[in-house]
Amino acid sequence: MRAYNFSAGPAILPEEVLKEAQAEMLDYRGCGMSVMEMSHRSKPFQQILDEATQDLRDLMNIPDNYKVIFVQGGATQQFAAIPMNLQTKNGTADYILSGNFSEKAYEEAQIFYGDKAHVIASSKEDNYTYIPDLTNLKIDDDADYVYICENNTIFGTTFHQLPDTKGKPLVSDQSSMFLSQPVDVSKYGVIYAGVQKNVGPAGLVIAIIREDLVKKEFVNPTPTMLKWKTQVDKGSLYNTPNSYSIYICGKVFKWIKKLGGLEAMKKRNEEKAKILYDYLDQSKLFKNTVRKDSRSIMNVCFRTGSEELDAKFVEESKKANIVSIKGHRLVGGMRASIYNAMPIEGVKALVEFMAKFEKENLK
Amino acid sequence: MRAYNFSAGPAILPEEVLKEAQAEMLDYRGCGMSVMEMSHRSKPFQQILDEATQDLRDLMNIPDNYKVIFVQGGATQQFAAIPMNLQTKNGTADYILSGNFSEKAYEEAQIFYGDKAHVIASSKEDNYTYIPDLTNLKIDDDADYVYICENNTIFGTTFHQLPDTKGKPLVSDQSSMFLSQPVDVSKYGVIYAGVQKNVGPAGLVIAIIREDLVKKEFVNPTPTMLKWKTQVDKGSLYNTPNSYSIYICGKVFKWIKKLGGLEAMKKRNEEKAKILYDYLDQSKLFKNTVRKDSRSIMNVCFRTGSEELDAKFVEESKKANIVSIKGHRLVGGMRASIYNAMPIEGVKALVEFMAKFEKENLK
Repeated sequence: MRAYNFSAGPAILPEEVLKEAQAEMLDYRGCGMSVMEMSHRSKPFQQILDEATQDLRDLMNIPDNYKVIFVQGGATQQFAAIPMNLQTKNGTADYILSGNFSEKAYEEAQIFYGDKAHVIASSKEDNYTYIPDLTNLKIDDDADYVYICENNTIFGTTFHQLPDTKGKPLVSDQSSMFLSQPVDVSKYGVIYAGVQKNVGPAGLVIAIIREDLVKKEFVNPTPTMLKWKTQVDKGSLYNTPNSYSIYICGKVFKWIKKLGGLEAMKKRNEEKAKILYDYLDQSKLFKNTVRKDSRSIMNVCFRTGSEELDAKFVEESKKANIVSIKGHRLVGGMRASIYNAMPIEGVKALVEFMAKFEKENLK
Repeated sequence: MRAYNFSAGPAILPEEVLKEAQAEMLDYRGCGMSVMEMSHRSKPFQQILDEATQDLRDLMNIPDNYKVIFVQGGATQQFAAIPMNLQTKNGTADYILSGNFSEKAYEEAQIFYGDKAHVIASSKEDNYTYIPDLTNLKIDDDADYVYICENNTIFGTTFHQLPDTKGKPLVSDQSSMFLSQPVDVSKYGVIYAGVQKNVGPAGLVIAIIREDLVKKEFVNPTPTMLKWKTQVDKGSLYNTPNSYSIYICGKVFKWIKKLGGLEAMKKRNEEKAKILYDYLDQSKLFKNTVRKDSRSIMNVCFRTGSEELDAKFVEESKKANIVSIKGHRLVGGMRASIYNAMPIEGVKALVEFMAKFEKENLK
């Protein structure tokens, strides 16, 4: 039986995508081989890559002056690639800290920028329970870019508006919200996402880069594989890519298209999140600890206030087919990641179990 | 029908491994989810990773003072990681050029070492048709390491002896020969391999690093993800790994164990290669263009001497269920990659077709 898998990533994928991949495992459409056995220089793989790229461009309505690349190393590797690609000789880098991953990105930027990497807003002092205030940001005149992590997987928060970067390129880590709703790509310099939360198997990052930011000159000695230009120039085939992950992502793109694209995803995701938040807002046992104006529709954190009771909830929920619901150690409690592929039935099953648990355990 | 897939990589995988993965696609052993949907921090995934690591250690008899990590970015990323991790302030780097990939590795080293990256042997002037002479190598007193690409996928050559590095760490790219035969790990400083040739799905590198070479200090500003120490300290889980590839590799390790380990693989691979080379050595149409003392048992290059006839061969062989047999553009002609998973029947089918083609086309 398939579980209601609330894992923050790697995470649940659409069942029909997995069934298709299963059927094609030993012989992809008469090629006599699995996609994982296929030369990345072969025609069938080039077609998989081309279709995936075009479907993504269609879904996100990506303007022509943005390049799309599929690269390895996870978002963590982009934490370094971003400064390495965007740094200019006397430039600075401005970071908005809204959680663990933006903090890590900022620390990585310091390797290259030293004290020219600046924090221009932060909600760290309140354990990232909200998105920092974005009014009157002190954006440096020499800033090469402004950095945000747009949805904070661990803390369950999201940017409901973008910062005014005063013309500086906005770089956004969208890992845990990628393709969950429409975004206006033209407002960004760089959007990137590890696919393992909302799109496909781990080991792949999709980066969407405004073409003027695909630089040819680098302040530091930079590995060829970290230069965006390397993969932009070679259509993501400079070396062997994570071809199987690209293949699965391509299927997920088609699944989203079939369901009506990103507007439909947004509707579906808001509906799922509302069920959960509505329950939480009236619950006498469970609390969502995030400020309401910062709530994420992808990752919903909650807790009972008692560590023992939280542990009991995690344990007992398994019987209701609910798995990977434990919160991150930085926050504690529970976290339900309700990505695109989580069916509404999963959220309903969770709320039903929460109600039962509340009834049994509320003193 | 499954094809005889002679692709150089991504390449053929054992059919029984694919069948197992197929069966587990929607529900891994009662977990209610695919391995690609599973948190990398979960117990079932930790077990997959631990077993894969131990099975690899058993297969290669890896000494305790060597660390094993699973990382992303392909061998190409290690071309940069190697100098970034091993460079000392006044050190040099010595490269032996035996093909395209060692050349690329050398070019990458120049980004960091500049003119302190040296070529100490090369067969480039003869289009890499043999392994360069390894006697009296001019190894620099200040060399941080000596670099080789031990099997040359494109050119069909292999090192049948290792260079005397005069005590300097030997770094070897074993991508297209990894697990094809026993190797004495203790003779190396670093062994690494992209898994997509002989082990599993693309997007994963296995690196085996002598522990004294896992450095803490770096000459250049170095991305966290390129420091070997990052993944050594975290058991390859510093960030989300290419978990599905690790899972498939783990199955391949068990398949090799079941067949008798690396001694059995060597026997099997030598037998397959002999069938092909024996045919080539008596053929009046096909020629293997590699010096006999340098022949690879993994990648066998051959040609007719006529480009038209080569193209005809590639085309007509498809009817005999032979695919991805075209040689690399740097060499031309044909190339049969006969990795571990290629059954002996595949090699026999190839030779049978070659004999038929020779009879029909020899004037």
